[in-house]
Amino acid sequence: MKESEIGGLTCSVARTVGILGDAWTLLIVRELFLGTRRYDDFLAYTGMAPKLLAARLRRLTDAGVVQKVLYTEKRYEYRLTPKGRDLYPVIVSITQWGDRWTKAEDEHEAPLKLTHKLCGHTIGANLVCVCCGEKLDPRGVEATQSAALRAERDKMREEFMAAPIRAKQKVSHK
Amino acid sequence: MKESEIGGLTCSVARTVGILGDAWTLLIVRELFLGTRRYDDFLAYTGMAPKLLAARLRRLTDAGVVQKVLYTEKRYEYRLTPKGRDLYPVIVSITQWGDRWTKAEDEHEAPLKLTHKLCGHTIGANLVCVCCGEKLDPRGVEATQSAALRAERDKMREEFMAAPIRAKQKVSHK
Repeated sequence: MKESEIGGLTCSVARTVGILGDAWTLLIVRELFLGTRRYDDFLAYTGMAPKLLAARLRRLTDAGVVQKVLYTEKRYEYRLTPKGRDLYPVIVSITQWGDRWTKAEDEHEAPLKLTHKLCGHTIGANLVCVCCGEKLDPRGVEATQSAALRAERDKMREEFMAAPIRAKQKVSHK
Repeated sequence: MKESEIGGLTCSVARTVGILGDAWTLLIVRELFLGTRRYDDFLAYTGMAPKLLAARLRRLTDAGVVQKVLYTEKRYEYRLTPKGRDLYPVIVSITQWGDRWTKAEDEHEAPLKLTHKLCGHTIGANLVCVCCGEKLDPRGVEATQSAALRAERDKMREEFMAAPIRAKQKVSHK
């Protein structure tokens, strides 16, 4: 499978990854949540090359995650759409994982302190069940594949098993 | 900045993205949460080329997200470490966003149904404040940069402003 085909799969992770799944795009989304709006500021704070930034912003705009808005006669700014703002749990989860697991030994402070305005405390985000409010843990959740997803995965597996050269490559690699 | 340098930044998003921020790696993490353990199964269900899979698994192992465990005399399997399992909110958030925003018109069923064993309901994951239990929304959260993050961003901005050729490229692009 080619990387460009990932977004066309049945799985919701794969489809999301097809839109967001590269490092630069995730940095752009981070900037949008930090309040960055202007092209120059994206260039400055991501360190991206202009052509690459333009291409990634176009992909996000095409996907309906970002809208390009004329804010003076000649200049545009980029804003998250509702679809884009809905990525908040994704970006907060990524931030918190980074805070927990990638901090250098001499760092005593999280790079970004998130304060919940309502209660005034540093978050601390938990992923909880909408229904019962309990914290979600992989062992407490059962994942059932839809018929369409199951069929697609079975087909991928069959194709893989039927490809003798590829299977051989795999064995020789191990 | 080069893509390989992203993981070296001060920001927790950037550091996480430096480990996970490519489409294939996120597919591997999805598989691990679905229970995939064996090399052949990763090949089958991600459609990755063997060399690429081996490289990505090595990166995840080096980063402490995955452990390679000998499970028979000759064969290894790959499992999430505690650091890896802690990615659950990231993968669930991605799944739910995909369910909401990438579903085709003729699809009536989410590809993956997640059932919370405790309450028996389909989740429905909310990101809530650990402190007060309220749902988190970008507008309700204030983000404060640490001194180190602020300094790094100011430096990036200064370097960007001082680079006349790059600034010109940017203008001509617009």
